[in-house]
Amino acid sequence: MSAPQIISIDAMGGDHAPEIVVKGVAFARIRYPKTKFLLFGDEARLAPLVAAEAKLSDCVTIRHAPDIITGDAKPSQALRQGRNSSMWKAIEAVKLGEASGVVSAGNTGALMAMSKIMMRTLSGIDRPAICSLFPTRVGETVVLDLGANAVCDARNLVEFAIMGECFARALLGMERPSIGLLNIGSEDFKGTETLRKAAQMLRDSPLELDFQGFIEGDDIAKGTVDVCVTDGFTGNVALKTAEGTAKLFTEFLKAAIKSSWLAMFGMIFARPALSRMIARTDPRRYNGALFVGLNGVVVKSHGGTDAVGFANAVGVAVDMIARDLNTKIGEELERMNAAAATSAQATTA
Amino acid sequence: MSAPQIISIDAMGGDHAPEIVVKGVAFARIRYPKTKFLLFGDEARLAPLVAAEAKLSDCVTIRHAPDIITGDAKPSQALRQGRNSSMWKAIEAVKLGEASGVVSAGNTGALMAMSKIMMRTLSGIDRPAICSLFPTRVGETVVLDLGANAVCDARNLVEFAIMGECFARALLGMERPSIGLLNIGSEDFKGTETLRKAAQMLRDSPLELDFQGFIEGDDIAKGTVDVCVTDGFTGNVALKTAEGTAKLFTEFLKAAIKSSWLAMFGMIFARPALSRMIARTDPRRYNGALFVGLNGVVVKSHGGTDAVGFANAVGVAVDMIARDLNTKIGEELERMNAAAATSAQATTA
Repeated sequence: MSAPQIISIDAMGGDHAPEIVVKGVAFARIRYPKTKFLLFGDEARLAPLVAAEAKLSDCVTIRHAPDIITGDAKPSQALRQGRNSSMWKAIEAVKLGEASGVVSAGNTGALMAMSKIMMRTLSGIDRPAICSLFPTRVGETVVLDLGANAVCDARNLVEFAIMGECFARALLGMERPSIGLLNIGSEDFKGTETLRKAAQMLRDSPLELDFQGFIEGDDIAKGTVDVCVTDGFTGNVALKTAEGTAKLFTEFLKAAIKSSWLAMFGMIFARPALSRMIARTDPRRYNGALFVGLNGVVVKSHGGTDAVGFANAVGVAVDMIARDLNTKIGEELERMNAAAATSAQATTA
Repeated sequence: MSAPQIISIDAMGGDHAPEIVVKGVAFARIRYPKTKFLLFGDEARLAPLVAAEAKLSDCVTIRHAPDIITGDAKPSQALRQGRNSSMWKAIEAVKLGEASGVVSAGNTGALMAMSKIMMRTLSGIDRPAICSLFPTRVGETVVLDLGANAVCDARNLVEFAIMGECFARALLGMERPSIGLLNIGSEDFKGTETLRKAAQMLRDSPLELDFQGFIEGDDIAKGTVDVCVTDGFTGNVALKTAEGTAKLFTEFLKAAIKSSWLAMFGMIFARPALSRMIARTDPRRYNGALFVGLNGVVVKSHGGTDAVGFANAVGVAVDMIARDLNTKIGEELERMNAAAATSAQATTA
């Protein structure tokens, strides 16, 4: 990594765009002073926002894109009508080699559909997945798929396992991450036929993955494994249920403190420690899900995040580009194919 | 409700049986002084435990059952070999009319399989479901299925909606509970074909249910709807992910307080308020999942719960019997069938 990175930004995606996007880029700029940004969107709206952030003057280029993909647009509709959208143009910049990765807080389905069309999937990967980190008792766990594929077959799940393992090694620096398949029981006979088949394939894999078998929903927070593999439907429900529960807990905590004068007095002393605790599970800290399995880095920010959260999503993109995740996934797949070929040769010999 | 209820207890099921089961029955006895209990299990182990609890002397009858269904037994195996088990005998007591409902902390799959065989499903119900309450920002939400059916079709989901609605009316006293289908987005095109079909059936239902469409994982904790309907795979993952997140949060909270002397000092004042908050999300409070859709009341306690949790599971059984949930579900299904017949007549006329 010597040349400065260029990150392409869909400045019009998300609930509070483009304001929080520009502010988020300004925050990211502080953390990554060598990174440059291409901002795609309505130039008339973006120019004054960028001008107001002094630190963006030398690192941001605005590129006009007149259209916006709305949050409720179907992916197929976005593909047909979105060629002049900020989202399309931002992804296209990566395809054209003008940027190394793209960040958007816009419509997830549209972002995935456009990314697939423009970047194509990595050779050997059937379907890209959405991948992110969950906080756990012992650190962080990689979870995928978080919503790209509502229905998956066993082979998809095996590919997710390989990509998740590479992600854990690249982002968390783990030597040999352990892998679990999310199920409704740890016994071999539990769950669906697809899960049992995927488990068998992972056990038999020539990659010699550290596959720990089935795990359950509470194993995510326990940190039982480093990589939790699931289909996009289950993963999305698990992600949002965890977010909802964490928010509920924070609200209950605040309400409990406000309910008593004595508690409010005690909080004068306990606040700094509790703030650290709340920061530890702050969803903004975990903002920025990576689309793995594409020929390029695409990061999806939560649509409702603020500038701090958006800056974290930019950070995920910067990290993934710097650590060259896609090359690593490609090497892993090649290694698997070679091992499979050798084992086939041995069988026929 | 004038005759005293008799509850049948599988005294050998669960991680800490029979000790916590007997203690749990003793706690339940205080809350429900008119209820009688039949305890099934190893008489030699149960007799001294029951004798040690003075308040159980006039309300408990021990019935010997030599075998135990282990936690890892397959349902099919439990059915073949479990006829002398405490679980089988406890369910059989309901079938024979000796008890009005059964509570077990044992193997969920075996409990469901045995209950189905002995009690049969309610007329008009294809598959029973596991149903429980989740704490929410505004109260409580009924969620089902929590794990009985890993794969469901649209009709199963519609039946779950009807049963969940009756459960909300019976247990929470709601007039017209709102219903949501758990999905990975609220837009009509999101999710699986099965979910889209179930949504259409619920919209078209002659029961005029208050169907609110699709909801997402975070809507459970928000309390967006009164009844959240999902397949048993997704529901089980959501339940355990929520439990895991709540536990993680509590641990982070405790660790934060212990990390600083100042916080520990502040806690002297804030502890009562925080304890109330933790009690509000105490999983023991939500222990006791009902198997809905059977000709009888079957309540599953968490296998790892303590005596307080087990007593709460007994409470769910007592409530369901007192409020005659199954009769209400039967009436609702009859009303639906009648409405369907009328509408069919109108169409052919």
